[in-house]
Amino acid sequence: MAAFPFSAIVGQNEMKRALLIAAVEPRIGGVMVFGDRGTGKSTAARALAALLPPMKVVAGCRFNCDPAGIKCSHGGNGKIDEVSVPFVDLPLGATEDRVTGSLDIERALVAGEKAFEPGLLARANRGFLYIDEINLLEDHLVDLLLDAAASGENVVERESLSVRHDARFVLIGSGNPEEGELRPQLLDRFGLSVEVRTPQDVQQRIEIMRRCDAAERDAKAFSAKWKRKDRQVLHQIAAGRTLLAQLSVPEATLADAAMLCMAVGADGLRGELTLIRAARALAALEGETAVGRSHLRAVAPMALRHRLRRGVLDETGPTVRIERAMAELWD
Amino acid sequence: MAAFPFSAIVGQNEMKRALLIAAVEPRIGGVMVFGDRGTGKSTAARALAALLPPMKVVAGCRFNCDPAGIKCSHGGNGKIDEVSVPFVDLPLGATEDRVTGSLDIERALVAGEKAFEPGLLARANRGFLYIDEINLLEDHLVDLLLDAAASGENVVERESLSVRHDARFVLIGSGNPEEGELRPQLLDRFGLSVEVRTPQDVQQRIEIMRRCDAAERDAKAFSAKWKRKDRQVLHQIAAGRTLLAQLSVPEATLADAAMLCMAVGADGLRGELTLIRAARALAALEGETAVGRSHLRAVAPMALRHRLRRGVLDETGPTVRIERAMAELWD
Amino acid sequence: MAAFPFSAIVGQNEMKRALLIAAVEPRIGGVMVFGDRGTGKSTAARALAALLPPMKVVAGCRFNCDPAGIKCSHGGNGKIDEVSVPFVDLPLGATEDRVTGSLDIERALVAGEKAFEPGLLARANRGFLYIDEINLLEDHLVDLLLDAAASGENVVERESLSVRHDARFVLIGSGNPEEGELRPQLLDRFGLSVEVRTPQDVQQRIEIMRRCDAAERDAKAFSAKWKRKDRQVLHQIAAGRTLLAQLSVPEATLADAAMLCMAVGADGLRGELTLIRAARALAALEGETAVGRSHLRAVAPMALRHRLRRGVLDETGPTVRIERAMAELWD
Amino acid sequence: MAAFPFSAIVGQNEMKRALLIAAVEPRIGGVMVFGDRGTGKSTAARALAALLPPMKVVAGCRFNCDPAGIKCSHGGNGKIDEVSVPFVDLPLGATEDRVTGSLDIERALVAGEKAFEPGLLARANRGFLYIDEINLLEDHLVDLLLDAAASGENVVERESLSVRHDARFVLIGSGNPEEGELRPQLLDRFGLSVEVRTPQDVQQRIEIMRRCDAAERDAKAFSAKWKRKDRQVLHQIAAGRTLLAQLSVPEATLADAAMLCMAVGADGLRGELTLIRAARALAALEGETAVGRSHLRAVAPMALRHRLRRGVLDETGPTVRIERAMAELWD
Amino acid sequence: MAAFPFSAIVGQNEMKRALLIAAVEPRIGGVMVFGDRGTGKSTAARALAALLPPMKVVAGCRFNCDPAGIKCSHGGNGKIDEVSVPFVDLPLGATEDRVTGSLDIERALVAGEKAFEPGLLARANRGFLYIDEINLLEDHLVDLLLDAAASGENVVERESLSVRHDARFVLIGSGNPEEGELRPQLLDRFGLSVEVRTPQDVQQRIEIMRRCDAAERDAKAFSAKWKRKDRQVLHQIAAGRTLLAQLSVPEATLADAAMLCMAVGADGLRGELTLIRAARALAALEGETAVGRSHLRAVAPMALRHRLRRGVLDETGPTVRIERAMAELWD
Amino acid sequence: MAAFPFSAIVGQNEMKRALLIAAVEPRIGGVMVFGDRGTGKSTAARALAALLPPMKVVAGCRFNCDPAGIKCSHGGNGKIDEVSVPFVDLPLGATEDRVTGSLDIERALVAGEKAFEPGLLARANRGFLYIDEINLLEDHLVDLLLDAAASGENVVERESLSVRHDARFVLIGSGNPEEGELRPQLLDRFGLSVEVRTPQDVQQRIEIMRRCDAAERDAKAFSAKWKRKDRQVLHQIAAGRTLLAQLSVPEATLADAAMLCMAVGADGLRGELTLIRAARALAALEGETAVGRSHLRAVAPMALRHRLRRGVLDETGPTVRIERAMAELWD
Repeated sequence: MAAFPFSAIVGQNEMKRALLIAAVEPRIGGVMVFGDRGTGKSTAARALAALLPPMKVVAGCRFNCDPAGIKCSHGGNGKIDEVSVPFVDLPLGATEDRVTGSLDIERALVAGEKAFEPGLLARANRGFLYIDEINLLEDHLVDLLLDAAASGENVVERESLSVRHDARFVLIGSGNPEEGELRPQLLDRFGLSVEVRTPQDVQQRIEIMRRCDAAERDAKAFSAKWKRKDRQVLHQIAAGRTLLAQLSVPEATLADAAMLCMAVGADGLRGELTLIRAARALAALEGETAVGRSHLRAVAPMALRHRLRRGVLDETGPTVRIERAMAELWD
Repeated sequence: MAAFPFSAIVGQNEMKRALLIAAVEPRIGGVMVFGDRGTGKSTAARALAALLPPMKVVAGCRFNCDPAGIKCSHGGNGKIDEVSVPFVDLPLGATEDRVTGSLDIERALVAGEKAFEPGLLARANRGFLYIDEINLLEDHLVDLLLDAAASGENVVERESLSVRHDARFVLIGSGNPEEGELRPQLLDRFGLSVEVRTPQDVQQRIEIMRRCDAAERDAKAFSAKWKRKDRQVLHQIAAGRTLLAQLSVPEATLADAAMLCMAVGADGLRGELTLIRAARALAALEGETAVGRSHLRAVAPMALRHRLRRGVLDETGPTVRIERAMAELWD
Repeated sequence: MAAFPFSAIVGQNEMKRALLIAAVEPRIGGVMVFGDRGTGKSTAARALAALLPPMKVVAGCRFNCDPAGIKCSHGGNGKIDEVSVPFVDLPLGATEDRVTGSLDIERALVAGEKAFEPGLLARANRGFLYIDEINLLEDHLVDLLLDAAASGENVVERESLSVRHDARFVLIGSGNPEEGELRPQLLDRFGLSVEVRTPQDVQQRIEIMRRCDAAERDAKAFSAKWKRKDRQVLHQIAAGRTLLAQLSVPEATLADAAMLCMAVGADGLRGELTLIRAARALAALEGETAVGRSHLRAVAPMALRHRLRRGVLDETGPTVRIERAMAELWD
Repeated sequence: MAAFPFSAIVGQNEMKRALLIAAVEPRIGGVMVFGDRGTGKSTAARALAALLPPMKVVAGCRFNCDPAGIKCSHGGNGKIDEVSVPFVDLPLGATEDRVTGSLDIERALVAGEKAFEPGLLARANRGFLYIDEINLLEDHLVDLLLDAAASGENVVERESLSVRHDARFVLIGSGNPEEGELRPQLLDRFGLSVEVRTPQDVQQRIEIMRRCDAAERDAKAFSAKWKRKDRQVLHQIAAGRTLLAQLSVPEATLADAAMLCMAVGADGLRGELTLIRAARALAALEGETAVGRSHLRAVAPMALRHRLRRGVLDETGPTVRIERAMAELWD
Repeated sequence: MAAFPFSAIVGQNEMKRALLIAAVEPRIGGVMVFGDRGTGKSTAARALAALLPPMKVVAGCRFNCDPAGIKCSHGGNGKIDEVSVPFVDLPLGATEDRVTGSLDIERALVAGEKAFEPGLLARANRGFLYIDEINLLEDHLVDLLLDAAASGENVVERESLSVRHDARFVLIGSGNPEEGELRPQLLDRFGLSVEVRTPQDVQQRIEIMRRCDAAERDAKAFSAKWKRKDRQVLHQIAAGRTLLAQLSVPEATLADAAMLCMAVGADGLRGELTLIRAARALAALEGETAVGRSHLRAVAPMALRHRLRRGVLDETGPTVRIERAMAELWD
Repeated sequence: MAAFPFSAIVGQNEMKRALLIAAVEPRIGGVMVFGDRGTGKSTAARALAALLPPMKVVAGCRFNCDPAGIKCSHGGNGKIDEVSVPFVDLPLGATEDRVTGSLDIERALVAGEKAFEPGLLARANRGFLYIDEINLLEDHLVDLLLDAAASGENVVERESLSVRHDARFVLIGSGNPEEGELRPQLLDRFGLSVEVRTPQDVQQRIEIMRRCDAAERDAKAFSAKWKRKDRQVLHQIAAGRTLLAQLSVPEATLADAAMLCMAVGADGLRGELTLIRAARALAALEGETAVGRSHLRAVAPMALRHRLRRGVLDETGPTVRIERAMAELWD
């Protein structure tokens, strides 16, 4: 299936914004998407991957090595290929071996040599790794995926293998809170989280049907029609990446971030660190030269929502609590 | 056992209609059949498969490759065979390997070569895959089957295998809601759902016994007797497939679909997308040139029934709720 | 141990009748025996098998191929052997491999060839398969056994094996309802069910002890003494099989069957189909030329008992409910 | 450790009697011993085995084949050995393979030949098999052991093995009812059951200590001292075996047995069959020529105790209920 | 780490006495130590092992065969080595194979010969086997260890292995009753049990710290300082072993033992047998020539404490109940 | 990722002190860190490892053998390498084999030789082993890690391997008490425990963000800036190690320690032994020549906190109870 154009996605602005932030600042550490079934969670992620220009890889290398990077040692033949940005959909029930790679038993038995069989992390390198219903995954796998997403490396040290390879990817998890939750320890390690809901506007829903129908009937024509808008998004990402390195965060903004986190009672310090990173990435996307309160305000829900302790008496949802705290502090 | 003729099935009209829609529009994504035991659920599906004309395959290819399609690379010998449309009955307790195919261990050990041993998805290609009591299947298998049914492909990427082959099939699941349910996440991915009940009319039951008895005593004679009616059904399907590509859905019908889904409170957007697809397929089967409210009305229960949240206080069944909503909106 | 003569079994008439019906009409689909421990459930089944005349098989064929049937392809040497009718007692804890047969790993490793190692279904071909305490068996095995019993075939399609061989056998399951029940879905697939109880008549119990003692002290002499009666039973079965093909069921009897099933509230249509089949087989055993209400009456409890929903308020047992319904309809 | 002499066991008369009955009439089907820990349950069984004279076996045969029986086919070298009567103590956690024997994997791999590695049932042939805390064993193993004990054969049909060898042994199980019970289905298959308690008489306990101390200090001298008494027991067993075949059971005794079983409400017919067998064996042991009420009375508790349904209201233990029933019927 | 000197252990007199009794009379069958964490349970056992003089073994024999015993058949080279008395610390999570030894798979595969790979029982032969937190071990392993400890042999009969080797060792188990208990069946098989508590005397605690500190700073000097006292203990053990064989137990002492056991209500007879054995060993350690009430009194708590049923109403601990019974009977 | 400089860590003084004590006195036996997520627990440990000067190892030795120590027998080539002090992060779900090392199956199969494949304990030798969320680890692994940490050795005796190698490392475990606790038996074996909380001071939080930002933007420059302070810490550790051997603990301080432990009711004697060791190490770090009450006071919470029984009625946390006891005894 050809991917749906990113710009043709109707609504779902918070999710799209989070994905763009992750594309500009991969150190943000993964995006967790909460929400109803059938709301296009994977469609948006897949669309973002498809929108990016093909990337250059060392031909024959199964780790997607960048020909412009450190010399590839994975048996690539020195030539250069162009491939789509990888989008890996983690299968339910995937084992650790399948994720990290493992000893190639066959070659060990037949050729008597110790070879590494790359896993899904190798395939996702320089792309996206999508985990549907991440709450169904075993904890140690989620942990391992978050480690790799945070460090940009996959380190395998076992069965007499000692392998270390790049695994830079944007991690996207999705889950429906009604079907069980991740442990707070793991949730906290996701950079951002967004909520998606079924749209409640008839015109919007008709528009979605119309676009889906058009895409289904003639995917090529539909893509062509949205090409220009997708290219604008692409330029926005590229410009944002360049700008990011030059953006600094003023003292007052740091203080705003710290006080907001204390006000909402987020455990640990990941909250304000992420808040600052996301605000800076947003400013970069918007082409601004300073990071301010407006950027904090725009990203605070997605940076903090999943880091709040649930109050026993307080039935207010986390988003409302964050917004109320911002209003009290800043308005 | 020879299959029972499709046209000789007494009653069960909703199920037969859903199967015909799936035969015309395979993108509908699978049919879930709820109902009492012993009501001929698998008989109807099996009958539809048997009614279809034999299909041409590359001789010797174990993936049922179409000689008219892209060149088969599975070691077929270039000749052409004719085989019945496959009907695969998923065994209770089937493993993932058995479903997707796996490394042929024996050949790996003996001949030292890496060969793919095709699974049930290969065997079901271009036919039907039937899962009795799907609620007893493990979630990750249901997920995998729904993925294949939706994408028309089986992708196996593990144990150093990297295989991708066509797996276009109509997925039919059956289950008795009294014996446990599928998770809503999985149910939602089925296109249509139908309910079958034991008929409560004596004449109908006598007629069924009479036909079963006749079929048992002389299966050949019985098939011959119903051949003509089965051929009519076949023509209806063939004509419907042709017509489908030309049918468009007017704005008003899209609005009707969206408002109905909002009124009954279906999560996500799969409800209205399926509703439109099913209505269009039905119009095509009926040889009409426009899709209208009457088609929506005829397929709404089967398209939406399994996507409704169960109300805590409301004891009304989903079918009644859908019909009541249509009456309020359209009558 | 030599089997106990069938005719020497004291009492237990319903069980004996059900076994004879199954011997005449194997399509009946298996007999389920409910009842107290130590009441001779397996003795009766074993006795029926032992009473049948030795059957001819292709010598050296491990699938019990009939020399008069389609040419055996299992490496039989073309000669003919005579063997007792097989009676296979399914061991508790049997695996699927052991039941269906499996790849002969040893031959695969040593001789490098793919050979099928036949399982218990092959050994039971043309005989009996007895499952004690079937409620302890895993569902997928019961399902598989019922499939084979219904279709008369064992189909194995996995581990790169693709084997299909005859597996025509009478399936007999036993269980004590106090120790857990089969799921209704599985129970419904058994053709007949009977109930056995410890006899409460002293003379009958003394007679049983006397016969058991006699059989234990001199099994040969005891068998010889009952030989003539056993031969009568054998003739009755043979005559019944011949007659069966010619017996037709009048419209009125079909209506009786349907109305009875509706009256007792059996789900699905297997109830009346089995009722008709069993009534016809009984008529054939009794040498009659028409199937009537008396035959229905005699077999209704065994054909319907296990297909009734348990009423929440109604504490009446299923047998009483069936008999009461017959009285209301027909007396 | 040398075994303790059977005659030197103080008290525990019911257990000793049950063991002697089983030694005379092995078809009795196993003895279940209930009781406190540390009361010499295994000591008594071990002592009985040690008391029996060495038996002749085909030298080199691992199945204990009798040189006087059917020609041994297990690779014995034709010579004759004398060995002690085997006493096998089933280890907790024994697997089915270890019990029944299994394919000798090593020989299959190394020598490429299919060899059967005999299990504990082969080793127990013509001796005793003791299972401590049988309630901890998995059901399918208990079932298998009871099958072998009842049929005198071990039949292994799997993994392409088809082996059948003699496994005639006295099965003795022990268990403490406070630590969990066997399912009634399995208990019922034991022929006899006895109860042992810690003796409450000081003199008896001093005597036990004295004998244990003597045996521990000089096992040889202790055995020598009891040799004569043990030889008397041995003669009693041998004479009993001879007499058994000639003993008949009068009609009145059969009636007594049946009425007693009905009075206490034992399910099934194993109760009276075992009662009669045990009474006859006891009569044989006592050198009598007729089986009468006194024999029934002596063995009724051990033959029936484990076959009674537990009454919901009746708190009386089974032994008391049996004795009360005998008093009512016969006194 | 060098072991702590046995004589340098402060307090913990009951544990030390039980260990000395086990060293003099290994048939006592194991010592169970209950008590708080961090009270030096394993230190004491380890110290006793280290105090014993090095033992002579057949050089190269992995079963610690005694050169003075029956000729070693384990491939020892006939020379003699001196090694420390073995102290084996059973790892949490040890498997049965690791405990009993197993087939040496590697040698079977590579050299095609069946070799036994000795386990922890072989390594513990003629020494000590310590099990920390024995309540966490699986029952079948505890059972197996107690069997070996009681019989002085390890018998392995499986996987076509038939191995029997000496495994004479003092079994010491430790556990904290607050963290779960052994089943009474298993507890009863331990000969002795002792309780250790954290000392509540400041001077004693200071002394312990001082000694630990001294040992840590200069282990050699510390050991040297306590050498003489340790040698006295060693002589006491040696003399006790010699004396033991000559000590007899008078009738009155046997009666005392029996009456005490009846008074406290210990199940079975292991209580008084162990009581007598322990009293005799204590008398031997103390160089006395007769076993009397004073010896019984000294060892009764450790011999009986773990064999008492817990009363439902009686909250008195077992030690108090034993002491109260002795006071009532003897004072 | 380059490690964060140890001196740049803001706050968290108790954790830093415990790590320094462990660096000076490795026999302290491990540090357990309790606390909120995202508070830099692993950052501090990692920073300490990175601060230490590179260590000399035998080149090619996978056990980090010290060239100045006993001759390396692990196939090192005799040359000397310099490597960073190892910091091993135990992966969630690590198996025992992976931790202790195991037989190198591949070499066994291919080269027919028995080789040891070193595990994580070998890799951690002379460095740090960090276990995040240690409460999720299986007990037997925690036990094994604590054994190695306490003894400084890894002993592997199984699968016919008999390997013993140095494994001297500082064990650091972290856990959030809200997510489940270690068993008291295991907790007690940790030398020290500390609590970390999210700082509640805005200036401190701003400072943390500023430093994290600086480190992220230019890790090299940031490290250079803190180099001098880190070097001071390094000198403090080196001086402390030298001083430690000469420090003695006066009688009064021992008494203080014992009385404090009795007052707070710590089970066993590990409490006061650790308290003394930690106080002495702290005195050494501070360059003092005598250990006194002030040192006890500073380390008592970290040495005793995890060894207190939880009172049923007393809701006071352990830290408060320790401080209150010190106040009562000493102020």
